[in-house]
Amino acid sequence: MTNRDRSLSSLDEFVLIDRVKGRVHPGPEVLVGIGDDAAVLEVSRHRQVIACDAMVQGVHFQCDWISPEDLGRRLVTANSSDFAAMGAIPRWGVLSFSVPSSMGSDWCARVHEGVISGLEEIDATLIGGDTTSTEGPVSLSLTLGGEAKWEPLLRSGGQAGDAIWVTGTLGDSALGLRSLQNGKGAREDHRWLVERHCRPEARLAWGQHLAETGLGTAAADVSDGFLQDLAHLARASGCAAEVMLEDLPLSAGYREVQAGSPPASFHVPALTGGEDFELVFTTAGDADFPDPRGGVSATRVGRFVSGSPGHVRVLDGDGLEVAVPLAGWNHFRSGAESSSADSL
Amino acid sequence: MTNRDRSLSSLDEFVLIDRVKGRVHPGPEVLVGIGDDAAVLEVSRHRQVIACDAMVQGVHFQCDWISPEDLGRRLVTANSSDFAAMGAIPRWGVLSFSVPSSMGSDWCARVHEGVISGLEEIDATLIGGDTTSTEGPVSLSLTLGGEAKWEPLLRSGGQAGDAIWVTGTLGDSALGLRSLQNGKGAREDHRWLVERHCRPEARLAWGQHLAETGLGTAAADVSDGFLQDLAHLARASGCAAEVMLEDLPLSAGYREVQAGSPPASFHVPALTGGEDFELVFTTAGDADFPDPRGGVSATRVGRFVSGSPGHVRVLDGDGLEVAVPLAGWNHFRSGAESSSADSL
Repeated sequence: MTNRDRSLSSLDEFVLIDRVKGRVHPGPEVLVGIGDDAAVLEVSRHRQVIACDAMVQGVHFQCDWISPEDLGRRLVTANSSDFAAMGAIPRWGVLSFSVPSSMGSDWCARVHEGVISGLEEIDATLIGGDTTSTEGPVSLSLTLGGEAKWEPLLRSGGQAGDAIWVTGTLGDSALGLRSLQNGKGAREDHRWLVERHCRPEARLAWGQHLAETGLGTAAADVSDGFLQDLAHLARASGCAAEVMLEDLPLSAGYREVQAGSPPASFHVPALTGGEDFELVFTTAGDADFPDPRGGVSATRVGRFVSGSPGHVRVLDGDGLEVAVPLAGWNHFRSGAESSSADSL
Repeated sequence: MTNRDRSLSSLDEFVLIDRVKGRVHPGPEVLVGIGDDAAVLEVSRHRQVIACDAMVQGVHFQCDWISPEDLGRRLVTANSSDFAAMGAIPRWGVLSFSVPSSMGSDWCARVHEGVISGLEEIDATLIGGDTTSTEGPVSLSLTLGGEAKWEPLLRSGGQAGDAIWVTGTLGDSALGLRSLQNGKGAREDHRWLVERHCRPEARLAWGQHLAETGLGTAAADVSDGFLQDLAHLARASGCAAEVMLEDLPLSAGYREVQAGSPPASFHVPALTGGEDFELVFTTAGDADFPDPRGGVSATRVGRFVSGSPGHVRVLDGDGLEVAVPLAGWNHFRSGAESSSADSL
């Protein structure tokens, strides 16, 4: 921060509101936007979709590791990833932003810019929110609203025999975070992984395609870690799941950075790392191989089977079960790195 | 907290989700509620209303001063008060809850109970949210959604000549907070004021009446302090405002506790105290005196006049302007006691 940066203690909150209001370009469906007691929307479809994700400094991010613009955009991605997992279309966002007075007003404006432009990237608009001071860490929460144009893709729609798919590649975000934590974020061979961590993309085109065509039977986004999110999907669908370790989609960057790690830990970031914001979904066992969407492929990684609901077995090339460390991340159990919780 | 109280570090986040899910009774309009990637709603009206309010420990509340149930309920009131100011009908809420692992799980469950029962009191349902850990203070944010059955009451609808009204009484919440800060919260003569601070009511019946009948020309809720909220209303309506000091509605509890204060400060809590969650609204100058709604009267306190938009003059019984200390509270300007910001 420079000397020109005004601290928030000298910034009028209502100046901040006016600045954000001036930056937003609401569509015709926003009858009342930022600045009144509440926002009013003209709703064109009858089925509305609502998702919510929060990010807390020190738990989900460190200000040293991510630019304020990327932080705001990443919050949008965490939310729109839930929309992708429902096959829904985001339309509007409401931001709740708690910030200590020690942060600069420029920093706050840049977070807002990230949220607003992140929403614009997915054709959504910021319609309101609440900005408050705090004596603690920065805390951001976004509620995203939109519509279910097609029958929503639920977690509960899968059945035994369904194929399990994953979009993109797994574990990049966790490795990018590890690079930042180890001070290797600026190294050329780590930069792509850091980019995957700081500027993830939600798979909206994939989710909407799966819902529109009816190809997807169930879906969730990979936010808590692939194994954990798959377990939720399987449990909701009343199935167990089998995953083929060697079929997991790994990026070239992942393979390069993990090349020296022992075999037992080579796949761990892909299996348990959070916030890839890829989709894990199922299709009927005899369904066609889905085409790439928006330049991103899906990879078949296993199948739903009969068994204890939510139980996931990871199998090696010989069909033998592989032991995997504690799957995923739970905010209240461990001090793990970074994640975001699903609904409530 | 007792020894039986489990700390959050031993509580599985997903157990918490299941517990909240089991406590909520969604209506038929909630097609998908808590537990999937997002909630899906069947929307019966085309104009949707969305509001958001946050509360941060140390800024908006102290855990010693308010029960967790009242804290949750109060967050609902802060939001539904915005709905009252629009004449809108709340239908659903999404809760974002950041909590340090040192808090007990029972405490969290009791906050959830306050939010859920507070929503039930106004015929609304909790449909989802996000629960995260934090290394800082407790932070709560609620997004409330619902419908505009009638033309929404905007801040901008007033004009010169309109009468200014306030529901209920002013300043009770600020005095209740002062009692808590001074360790007088348990005294018999302060108890009612503390109740007004900890268990405020949103004036939904009033706001909906004003919108339904078209009697209200503009409205806002008193969250930042009467003078400040009135100034917003006047500014949005392009008017100045005059307020008659002696017409301000004060409760018996207010008069009793303030009896010994010097004349210059007697009215200050009523003029600048935040979070009364009363409505300030305007009616056409020749409109009838509105009847009480839900046992709560409105009092005529002044009028909109031509002049610098947003400028508010407070007049004594002789029509002379009274000097008032800085109106209201702004999160980033002062260390004032407690408040919540309007949209964004």
